Amino acid sequence: MALSPAIRTVAIVGTGVIGRSWAAVFARAGCETRLFDVDPDQLPRARVWLDGQRKPDWGPIVACATVDAALDTAGYVQESGPERLDVKQQLFVDLDRAAPPSAILASSTSAFDMTEIARGLRHPERCIVAHPVNPPHVIPAVEVLGGIRTAVDVVDRTCDLLRAVGQTPVVLKKHVHGFILNRLQFALVREAIHLLQHDVADVEAIDAVVREGLGLRWALLGPFAVADTNKDDGVRAYFGGYEQWIIDLMNQLGPTPSLDGDLIERIGKALDGARGETSRAEVREWRDRMVVEIRRLKADNPVARVGERAQ
Amino acid sequence: MALSPAIRTVAIVGTGVIGRSWAAVFARAGCETRLFDVDPDQLPRARVWLDGQRKPDWGPIVACATVDAALDTAGYVQESGPERLDVKQQLFVDLDRAAPPSAILASSTSAFDMTEIARGLRHPERCIVAHPVNPPHVIPAVEVLGGIRTAVDVVDRTCDLLRAVGQTPVVLKKHVHGFILNRLQFALVREAIHLLQHDVADVEAIDAVVREGLGLRWALLGPFAVADTNKDDGVRAYFGGYEQWIIDLMNQLGPTPSLDGDLIERIGKALDGARGETSRAEVREWRDRMVVEIRRLKADNPVARVGERAQ
Repeated sequence: MALSPAIRTVAIVGTGVIGRSWAAVFARAGCETRLFDVDPDQLPRARVWLDGQRKPDWGPIVACATVDAALDTAGYVQESGPERLDVKQQLFVDLDRAAPPSAILASSTSAFDMTEIARGLRHPERCIVAHPVNPPHVIPAVEVLGGIRTAVDVVDRTCDLLRAVGQTPVVLKKHVHGFILNRLQFALVREAIHLLQHDVADVEAIDAVVREGLGLRWALLGPFAVADTNKDDGVRAYFGGYEQWIIDLMNQLGPTPSLDGDLIERIGKALDGARGETSRAEVREWRDRMVVEIRRLKADNPVARVGERAQ
Repeated sequence: MALSPAIRTVAIVGTGVIGRSWAAVFARAGCETRLFDVDPDQLPRARVWLDGQRKPDWGPIVACATVDAALDTAGYVQESGPERLDVKQQLFVDLDRAAPPSAILASSTSAFDMTEIARGLRHPERCIVAHPVNPPHVIPAVEVLGGIRTAVDVVDRTCDLLRAVGQTPVVLKKHVHGFILNRLQFALVREAIHLLQHDVADVEAIDAVVREGLGLRWALLGPFAVADTNKDDGVRAYFGGYEQWIIDLMNQLGPTPSLDGDLIERIGKALDGARGETSRAEVREWRDRMVVEIRRLKADNPVARVGERAQ
């Protein structure tokens, strides 16, 4: 990739599945990428995975024994530790102490408000949420959101860096539980489970209408842009013209289901059957390969720029 | 395409945007495709569009002046008239009278129960819903559902024909308002509007998290299969492990919004801005071209078969 991020040295703190994927994002953009993990067993596993991914033009990847060594020269820190508020708060105390004064401290959290994580820190103004979609080295969207004391220029610099390393930052204006990506995802999943529980359709049928229907459009256009293309006169005619039908439909959507063991087992059995001899790891590898190809297809076909001035 | 549907002659009744797209589906699979529309102005428009699409190996396309001429030798009729129950009921009386005894009568309705449409017909057992995604010559998913008196073999023969012409039939087990595809779509849209109304994110940001995030996975794997690949131990570990977080999130999703004029105008303005100089027609052409490429990519990469035993 022909990328040149202004920030040249990045630290990855927490090198599990998300952290190591972040390391690939920054190293392939040419950044010196320094890894630290409180669990000494994680680093070698991350190394093995990254060695399998790396290309000759990647920046150096350096495993560090201490958080201080990892952060010493970093301009940006991406934290991907366990999803527990007390753990994140303690980690951010360490990061705030060890990072150079100008460094941005970003968390991969999918759950917590940066106002809470950064409470009591000396420099909360440089702390920010940068929540990726699994896995970030394949899927570009990253939700970006500061806490109440985060500086505006930290939001801007984070977005600049993310764009420079090939991601698509999406800025949220305020904290909500689940941010926007998981709220949209679980709105659909909630209804999917509701339809399953009421025996309207099977697991395979529900997956198929998304994979062979809705998802083919949503890989190209978001939900509002889809509505805009559904009528010659666009979204005004669509939401205006079908308003009552849409309201009636929304009013009939199901409530939050119970995720009981029997239901989960029913879903698990159906997916096992559909997957057959193929392992989950093979499905993931295939998914990652296909997503890369779809992104290449979009990048090679410039009308794909339609609507891509997001955030 | 190397397709050979058992039913060789198909009638398309209603030749608007959906009907003519259906005509392309059947004609390109080699079927003799006979068109009829109660509005005499529609047929020439459909002809022009189909002439622009057709390839030398397509089956013949015949515009007919009467419903009897269109249905005379048809083995399958796809009705795509206006979405009004009384109009569909009257149309089906005509179709039931004019079609050969063995013909299947399918409706593209996205709203009505075939039990209602076929009420009082002589042969309700051959009437079925085959609800496409716009446009069906590009997007393969078709929701298939009989009414209370529809014969089981009519469901099977409809699915066989749809598969033989390159579509992906998805069978529903019972009627629900909006079927499953629009319920899933509007579950997500409802939350998207909720986030917009509460100023959590802009139109462009919401579209981007789908287009550059969720949609890239959903073009390949349905929502249950995505959950299954999110953890090494699959969907049981995912729904089991994050259960409380998921339930809390689902409980906080927004209620049905009002679709007031100001909100619709805000969405319209944002989409106009994002689209810029590109016309809606150009966006649609690009979308159709890209969907065809994504489907080719999946077809050329056989692990894409994962989970594709759905119907």
